[in-house]
Amino acid sequence: MAIPMTQILPVLPTVDEHYCDQWRYPDGVAFMDGQYLPMSEAKISVLDWGFLHSDATYDTVHVWNGRFFRLDLHLDRFFGGVERLRMKLPYDREKIESILTNCVALSGHRSAYVDMICTRGSSPTFSRDPRQAENRFIAFAVPFGSVANKEQLERGLHVAISETVRIPPKSVDPAIKNCHWLDLVKGLFDAYDRGAETALIVDTNGHIAEGPGFNVFVVKDGSLRTPAFGVLPGITRRTVFDLCAEIGLSATAADISRAEIKGADEVFITSTAGGIMPVTRIDDAAISNGQVGSVTRRLMDLYWRKHDDPAWSTAVICP
Amino acid sequence: MAIPMTQILPVLPTVDEHYCDQWRYPDGVAFMDGQYLPMSEAKISVLDWGFLHSDATYDTVHVWNGRFFRLDLHLDRFFGGVERLRMKLPYDREKIESILTNCVALSGHRSAYVDMICTRGSSPTFSRDPRQAENRFIAFAVPFGSVANKEQLERGLHVAISETVRIPPKSVDPAIKNCHWLDLVKGLFDAYDRGAETALIVDTNGHIAEGPGFNVFVVKDGSLRTPAFGVLPGITRRTVFDLCAEIGLSATAADISRAEIKGADEVFITSTAGGIMPVTRIDDAAISNGQVGSVTRRLMDLYWRKHDDPAWSTAVICP
Repeated sequence: MAIPMTQILPVLPTVDEHYCDQWRYPDGVAFMDGQYLPMSEAKISVLDWGFLHSDATYDTVHVWNGRFFRLDLHLDRFFGGVERLRMKLPYDREKIESILTNCVALSGHRSAYVDMICTRGSSPTFSRDPRQAENRFIAFAVPFGSVANKEQLERGLHVAISETVRIPPKSVDPAIKNCHWLDLVKGLFDAYDRGAETALIVDTNGHIAEGPGFNVFVVKDGSLRTPAFGVLPGITRRTVFDLCAEIGLSATAADISRAEIKGADEVFITSTAGGIMPVTRIDDAAISNGQVGSVTRRLMDLYWRKHDDPAWSTAVICP
Repeated sequence: MAIPMTQILPVLPTVDEHYCDQWRYPDGVAFMDGQYLPMSEAKISVLDWGFLHSDATYDTVHVWNGRFFRLDLHLDRFFGGVERLRMKLPYDREKIESILTNCVALSGHRSAYVDMICTRGSSPTFSRDPRQAENRFIAFAVPFGSVANKEQLERGLHVAISETVRIPPKSVDPAIKNCHWLDLVKGLFDAYDRGAETALIVDTNGHIAEGPGFNVFVVKDGSLRTPAFGVLPGITRRTVFDLCAEIGLSATAADISRAEIKGADEVFITSTAGGIMPVTRIDDAAISNGQVGSVTRRLMDLYWRKHDDPAWSTAVICP
């Protein structure tokens, strides 16, 4: 029996009650809203302003061989960023320290990449007024990751300088560690196009600024320099200053031109994700003789040795 | 019996299998990975680069009285942004149109705010290389929202001009509709501090740029002007140009100084979230006589009348 055409209505798909997640996640433990969860459960609403408006701040501290490295400095920066964004954390510093510790301990990782995030959150009415949003704190611990892999750490990274300009401080305060990375991502693709492994982008004056998740240093005639303007005040960057003070090397924060970085004796980058990492090639030319330099090696060694020094690190689980 | 101290070990909290969500969400329907879901289920991993690096683009189209308004223009911009970010959508344009339609139809909303999002996604290994990430498409329909509420639409908004500089095009291409809003959020808080209801921020030359989610127009001696540099090419902004052409008003894109906007005969803002919305007060002074002007009213009327014109709108469910 033929069905009359008038009875054929558009058929709508069904709305499922639950999302069926097919993605894979790194092994780790997250904290959200009082719960500790596997990474596969650590999700935020697509309506969270932290996602829709990148209205969030975060910090990443690493754990090496069971010890946090310079956790206090990361917490200082994180709390500073939260305050500048006029957000309120639902927990105090002591509680957040214990949450981070628990994430790492529960993950079982001896070396971990530990994130703490504060997002604007959202309001139940989806109000556009950020004052009405309920701010949220999220933390997680996943396996330690590095900007440079083992081979790159040994031979030095190949970096390209992109024309992309780092978002200037008059737009977004770089002291607030933020997720505004489209400039850095553009820089990365520019670098890949030119056969390099990662990128440096420039400041509004055309000087070298920073790369995706790292600061940069040059060594010239035994002295170190790192850009001063419009860059994240990195904790590993700060650590290089502290190490230099300890071993009597001069280190200053000041502009670095393209010509200066290319003419340096040594170049390295710094990040919580990997520490101090040598750069031996910029654009199409080797830095100096193309080998990892002695100052870089000395600082790398010293940096890793500090990881079991109680003045620089704290055990994940106190005895 | 006393327990010997040596038997007291640090007790770790348990890791729950599932997240127990206590937040409330607006009523709506989302699409993710082939499923239609209630808004409470529309979540992305905290490891998605769309969140951690704001490495995403989106577009918002609205539905009014059962009809999409200028959907084609929104899809054009969205596909353009995805391409510029070197992402790949898992669906073609026709499929995305049907997904958006289904979200609205399933939501039951006659007037809706409809989002389409493409995020970089992430890789299972949490690799830092964006080329290894699996890009994701997400869409949702929630109730229609407006920058200005009913009262503000009648009397005009009170806006403050913030010193914050809109992220410049050399950093992030404004033609890619993006989630980098910390400059706009800073502007909003500056405006709230000064008793205003929303904000305008400036471009790198100190001229008026745009506000949180909207473009701005001035009317002077019967002619319209809107900033040309470093602003989102808004679809409602474009619509104002089209409406002006239709009724023979002159409209141009060119710099607007602070003095010029304050000395305008009329000022209005444009956004998919609310359409054409009058501004009657900037900082501490009224615009002209402080009343909504006649050009603004005429354009508002025409804008809403276009919403059931088949040349400008399409029915959510085709007959």
